[in-house]
Amino acid sequence: MDLNARIDDAVCRAIAIGRGGVAPAQLSEALDYATSPGGARIRPTILASVAMACGDDRPGVTDAAVAALELIHCASLVHDDLPCFDDAELRRGKPSVHRAYSEPLAVLAGDSLIILAFDVLARAAEDAPRRGVRLMRTLAQCSGMPNGICAGQGWESEAKVDLAAYHRSKTGALFIAATQMGAIAAGHDPEPWYELGDRIGEAFQVADDLRDALMDVDALGKPAGQDEAHGRPNAVAELGVAGATGRLRNILAGAISSIPSCPGEARLAQMVRMQSERIMPDAVRHLA
Amino acid sequence: MDLNARIDDAVCRAIAIGRGGVAPAQLSEALDYATSPGGARIRPTILASVAMACGDDRPGVTDAAVAALELIHCASLVHDDLPCFDDAELRRGKPSVHRAYSEPLAVLAGDSLIILAFDVLARAAEDAPRRGVRLMRTLAQCSGMPNGICAGQGWESEAKVDLAAYHRSKTGALFIAATQMGAIAAGHDPEPWYELGDRIGEAFQVADDLRDALMDVDALGKPAGQDEAHGRPNAVAELGVAGATGRLRNILAGAISSIPSCPGEARLAQMVRMQSERIMPDAVRHLA
Repeated sequence: MDLNARIDDAVCRAIAIGRGGVAPAQLSEALDYATSPGGARIRPTILASVAMACGDDRPGVTDAAVAALELIHCASLVHDDLPCFDDAELRRGKPSVHRAYSEPLAVLAGDSLIILAFDVLARAAEDAPRRGVRLMRTLAQCSGMPNGICAGQGWESEAKVDLAAYHRSKTGALFIAATQMGAIAAGHDPEPWYELGDRIGEAFQVADDLRDALMDVDALGKPAGQDEAHGRPNAVAELGVAGATGRLRNILAGAISSIPSCPGEARLAQMVRMQSERIMPDAVRHLA
Repeated sequence: MDLNARIDDAVCRAIAIGRGGVAPAQLSEALDYATSPGGARIRPTILASVAMACGDDRPGVTDAAVAALELIHCASLVHDDLPCFDDAELRRGKPSVHRAYSEPLAVLAGDSLIILAFDVLARAAEDAPRRGVRLMRTLAQCSGMPNGICAGQGWESEAKVDLAAYHRSKTGALFIAATQMGAIAAGHDPEPWYELGDRIGEAFQVADDLRDALMDVDALGKPAGQDEAHGRPNAVAELGVAGATGRLRNILAGAISSIPSCPGEARLAQMVRMQSERIMPDAVRHLA
């Protein structure tokens, strides 16, 4: 089974738990709708790649971690799309969950996915308590308060924002979760894997900044986009397009060299390189 | 420390984890606002009472279970109060979370409380993995899909409702969680404790039905309230006020006689009797 199929399979099996037995039909469907077809599944791909680089000696535990992380990510998308946040009409090319079902069902689907994420890890912990419990601690830390993605969203309601804390919790947290949970799932110490996740998260942030600025290059003929319009500091405003592109390359090179020594180090470096190419906006490839 | 103080203390310590470090101030405050001052804290009182009846040999684990269950209950109240559900202005005599803060912060506060509930149990599981993992499985089952309180709310979006599943998941689930988690926290088998939780949940349902009907006795001079107006089947419509009151007494008597043999059986029976008196509407006391 290739990696994408493995991830889809792990997510599907998790959703099947939430849909089992006598359940309200629409909410049950919404769980599936919110999680498939998946997006790029970047976070679980990183998680599984790290686990494989570390030996992947308990594939069932890795699968549980993969599913749990993706469920949390999908839950955050469902809630972020709600009218009181982004009021997004579309997600992954189809109506967002609250548009397809209803707002109450979108709130409940997000809640259920969060709970299911921990349920899946708790089930894995029955056979592998040490790893399971560490996975749960890490997932909670990266998703809740005070340092997880909930905190990241929460910063957007503040008049005065701690930018480092904001970016780390909003974008970085789930990438750090991805590398650390991959290590934990394979029985390795998660600590040395923090830097890789942190750098990948930072790279995503800069790539987003570039995309935000470049969209307007095409659309408005000027290199300043939404971030600048809202006075939000970003890498392009600070360094210019070429500077930000250079920084993105540097972060990614640093990410690769931060990979801890492990059996599958070379293959993992290859995966990070591939993901890097994917996040680099087309318009700046020639600059780097 | 008396039981109420012990419960408040456990909840406060859990909230302090979510508020630690550099966190967005309003969301951080909202976590505290949503959980204190508490309501009757009936579910954690039942949980702690069962744990004590079973010996309470790991008080730290009991405290974690108490906090986790109360956090999930509070999260469900915060989300149920949202405009897309009950649009409640007040909760426990003060503005609901989305009125006091904002709708985005209410969504995030609920999400954070759910995650924190599992985090608190995962922390307890580091020292007591077997109990911790069982507590997480039980909490997930009683709060998520397909059988937990999320499912209960989800049924309200269905045209055709499985009433038994609806009541059991909407009202019963957290009472079953309370008795079973109490047993697990003290190292006992949760299975024999299912019936007590289930019966207490059923008693609450009938007491609610009575209150719904009796509110209108005072307000409108007729014994049929919201449930009947909406065609929702309830115990009063089915049995009349006197009949439903009798049924409530029977359920509570059954609850007490279902208490499994354990060191603190007599004291626990006393607690259930006391809680029973509290839920019995004043207007029907003379009927029973």
